[in-house]
Amino acid sequence: MSKKMNNDKLMIFALGGVAEIGKNMYVVQYGNDIVVIDAGLKFPEEDMLGIDIVIPDITYLTENRDKVRGILLTHGHEDHIGGLPYVLKNLNVPVYGTKLTLGLVENKLKEAGLLGETKRVLIHADSEVQLGTTMKATFFKTNHSIPDSVGVCIETPEGNVVHTGDFKFDHTPVNDQFADLHRMGEIGKKGVLALLSDSTNAEKPGFTPSEKNVGIVLNDIFRKADQRVVVATFASNVHRVQQVIEAAYATGRKVTIIGRSMVNVVTIASELGYLNVPDGILIEPEEVNKMAADRVVILCTGSQGEPMSALTRMARSTHRKVDILPGDTVIIAATPVPGNEKYIGRTIDELFRLGADVIYSGSNSGVHVSGHGSQEELKLMLNLMRPKFFIPIHGEYRMLRRHALLGESVGVDSDNIFLVDIGDVVEIEGGEARKAGKVPAGNVLIDGLGVGDVGNIVLRDRKLLSQDGILVVVVTLSKQDGTIVSGPDIISRGFVYVRESEGLLDEANRIVSSTLEKLMNENVNEWASLKTSVKDALGRFLYDQTRRRPMILPIIMEV
Amino acid sequence: MSKKMNNDKLMIFALGGVAEIGKNMYVVQYGNDIVVIDAGLKFPEEDMLGIDIVIPDITYLTENRDKVRGILLTHGHEDHIGGLPYVLKNLNVPVYGTKLTLGLVENKLKEAGLLGETKRVLIHADSEVQLGTTMKATFFKTNHSIPDSVGVCIETPEGNVVHTGDFKFDHTPVNDQFADLHRMGEIGKKGVLALLSDSTNAEKPGFTPSEKNVGIVLNDIFRKADQRVVVATFASNVHRVQQVIEAAYATGRKVTIIGRSMVNVVTIASELGYLNVPDGILIEPEEVNKMAADRVVILCTGSQGEPMSALTRMARSTHRKVDILPGDTVIIAATPVPGNEKYIGRTIDELFRLGADVIYSGSNSGVHVSGHGSQEELKLMLNLMRPKFFIPIHGEYRMLRRHALLGESVGVDSDNIFLVDIGDVVEIEGGEARKAGKVPAGNVLIDGLGVGDVGNIVLRDRKLLSQDGILVVVVTLSKQDGTIVSGPDIISRGFVYVRESEGLLDEANRIVSSTLEKLMNENVNEWASLKTSVKDALGRFLYDQTRRRPMILPIIMEV
Repeated sequence: MSKKMNNDKLMIFALGGVAEIGKNMYVVQYGNDIVVIDAGLKFPEEDMLGIDIVIPDITYLTENRDKVRGILLTHGHEDHIGGLPYVLKNLNVPVYGTKLTLGLVENKLKEAGLLGETKRVLIHADSEVQLGTTMKATFFKTNHSIPDSVGVCIETPEGNVVHTGDFKFDHTPVNDQFADLHRMGEIGKKGVLALLSDSTNAEKPGFTPSEKNVGIVLNDIFRKADQRVVVATFASNVHRVQQVIEAAYATGRKVTIIGRSMVNVVTIASELGYLNVPDGILIEPEEVNKMAADRVVILCTGSQGEPMSALTRMARSTHRKVDILPGDTVIIAATPVPGNEKYIGRTIDELFRLGADVIYSGSNSGVHVSGHGSQEELKLMLNLMRPKFFIPIHGEYRMLRRHALLGESVGVDSDNIFLVDIGDVVEIEGGEARKAGKVPAGNVLIDGLGVGDVGNIVLRDRKLLSQDGILVVVVTLSKQDGTIVSGPDIISRGFVYVRESEGLLDEANRIVSSTLEKLMNENVNEWASLKTSVKDALGRFLYDQTRRRPMILPIIMEV
Repeated sequence: MSKKMNNDKLMIFALGGVAEIGKNMYVVQYGNDIVVIDAGLKFPEEDMLGIDIVIPDITYLTENRDKVRGILLTHGHEDHIGGLPYVLKNLNVPVYGTKLTLGLVENKLKEAGLLGETKRVLIHADSEVQLGTTMKATFFKTNHSIPDSVGVCIETPEGNVVHTGDFKFDHTPVNDQFADLHRMGEIGKKGVLALLSDSTNAEKPGFTPSEKNVGIVLNDIFRKADQRVVVATFASNVHRVQQVIEAAYATGRKVTIIGRSMVNVVTIASELGYLNVPDGILIEPEEVNKMAADRVVILCTGSQGEPMSALTRMARSTHRKVDILPGDTVIIAATPVPGNEKYIGRTIDELFRLGADVIYSGSNSGVHVSGHGSQEELKLMLNLMRPKFFIPIHGEYRMLRRHALLGESVGVDSDNIFLVDIGDVVEIEGGEARKAGKVPAGNVLIDGLGVGDVGNIVLRDRKLLSQDGILVVVVTLSKQDGTIVSGPDIISRGFVYVRESEGLLDEANRIVSSTLEKLMNENVNEWASLKTSVKDALGRFLYDQTRRRPMILPIIMEV
């Protein structure tokens, strides 16, 4: 452990990932050394209209760019690496990750044109990474719904800080990717000052089942199905993909892979040796229709009912290469991410209508298991690490809180458990921890190429426009006597269907005219008051007639 | 049974409620007699921007108004009576319902100013209703999450058509409101030609637990809580409300009722004798703060996290009368309606942040049971009725399909099971049933006071506006030489925040000018082509710069 310097403190905080699911980014700072763990993205909330993705506010990091020693990646999921291209544009620091994680990252950086200028450092379970003069990171293998996931132990002069990453304990992992219980035991034995642990399933009692269970169910379904089998799952779940391929092999079926991200992940994972694909088992989508139905498995994206995904297109019979046929078996091997329930439900309905037999997790069919540990596994982690201080991470507030109670239940002193929001700094000095203010933190909204150029005003306007549309009112007044030269012309978008509402709009016209004429007679002619009066009069009338409040945009010109 | 007339047929179809949850409306027609069962509303899908509610298209009924003998109501839930005010405006026919159902309906009609002109007929379990010359309706009591629910048996010259309404089998019902198994047995014994049965829980194995179970759990929580207890549930679940009041009484707590619909339902239900409220147990919200915390129960609306509801306001500390205090116990006695998961999650998080202990169904806490029967109860109904023909209703397509399989499993001939969409007519004649075309059916969207004036074009515009906003481009050209007299002025709403994007908008300005000047030089001066060219040029530029496609509204004037 490096030597303690005068009045240097240990600071731990999250820039994303606490009191939310997504955009994970955690920071550990000692003195002049800053290390970042993960750089994820989040998908927009329903009130972020038109927004594509959300990333963390990294103001603190850019303001301290000279101190940032690197970004450690725990695994290759979007909510942990998806923000990298944006972060690295503003902060060129080394990125540390395991083989598969870096493989997925490099793909992203290529697309963003950042591959050349980004230093990438390959780590494995035994790596040691020196971070500046005061900190060192080591790693331990975990089980998760993507291979090559690790937890991180950061040795600091104050003591060791452990970040679990996303984890479960799978005692029968696919491809024998066992979690390194021994390393965890060692780390715990040496002593853990602070533990940051995954809270996703803190509300779920018991143990999360092994991924192998899904393999058994898949084998069974593949065997019984007398026609084609379609399996939709998360592309990044390489273990799941492996089991689909094995079940296909065992039942004498060929596999075709459909969907950009699925093709992408399978390619990378095979190249890097995380996927064992028997020779000749993969076929092109075009070959599917030439083969006997009971010899085919279609592995595709769309397990969340995403509108543009492969499965959704098939369900709507709009996919260029594959149609769903009566008698096909469709397996949706995933649970809905909150908010997606309706989309998936619709896809399932459409598949049934096409005559397919649909097997989905709602019908507790065993075709999906979570990648996150349940309460008993969270307690196991707590007991392996026996931390002095505990910071539940990676979950909505209710999950963090439940995780905190689990911490207390295994003996962590409740005064030593910190429920934090993004930006809240936990400061540890001389073995004492306390909340010490905030660093800048928040949502950076990405809309197309725009990063952060859409703020509350724009979102409020989009919200208004989405509810009742807009009316543009155009009038030209005469410079001389202020009489109306042309207009008012009213253009409506998203308010009412004009053909059906001529009467309403004619009346609206009259109201605008009379309002303006009245004001002119009173010699009111400042732009502002003319516009405001038109807005008010028209708004009142329309609300009275329709109980709607369209945005009103008066355009008054003078000639 | 009335006499069979020449070539008269029996027709059965749904105008709402099949392949959807909501806006239930079913029609049984024999010859010149039409009877309608229920007239519900549905809440808008996420793509119906700005829409308040959705009701069935009743074109068929208005075109045959002289044949419509009445509307039979099975129970008082919004998805069964919520459409009545709109339907009755266009179709003044008698409405038949049980006491509580009519009580709730009358409240609606009063608000809509239709109470006077609407004939309301009170029915009870033994009522017989003659419908025109050919049909007669009788009723049977069922269990559901609102009292006074009934199923309907319509006797026709072709045979008996049974509509279950929404039901479960609760063998230990609150207030001894037993389902009338004997009547159901009689009806089944006489012979059922066609059964229309509730499919809501067709995917759920086993039996739905009794409402009484919730009462036991509530008692237990009330007893253990050492401070105030807040209970949020559906206002219309009078049995649940009864059990809250009883648990409060048993644990020496007073009850205050908060939330418009809760106050409304409790008032009606008590007046009509469906709620037993011990004297002096109800207190005003203002009195709550004067009482010892462990003597109080707050019964409120907001179990779905609705933004304006009582519980949501309390959770945000914006409620005028009640604050949530640390140590309060909050019970959310409901499951999320699909689509509401996030809202409820947010409310739960906010309540935890205020220091409350929140008990919700996610934590399978036993504070809620469904009002709809699970698979075993659906089979029980099928075996009680032993129908020749079976039409699963009241569910998404996947639920109807699951229900159809349950029908087969108890011996209904699969050729006699009809999976229908709204408008699909099932025609029965001489004991033979077949699908016989469609009647008009669909969604009528209600936005404010407008009924059906918002169509696809308006919704498409709202969608576009919500994604990337709108740019209004105003230019004035000279009549003489077509040069630009004033403008282009660009006004942006919901696109980008202008202050941060001046450069972009200046460039946009130049592009509009040059486009117009170019066209003028080429003597192109038809309005249409000028506008289209501006739209295209500006659209291309903005997409190229921002990857966004705002709506562009060119306004070109001449002076």
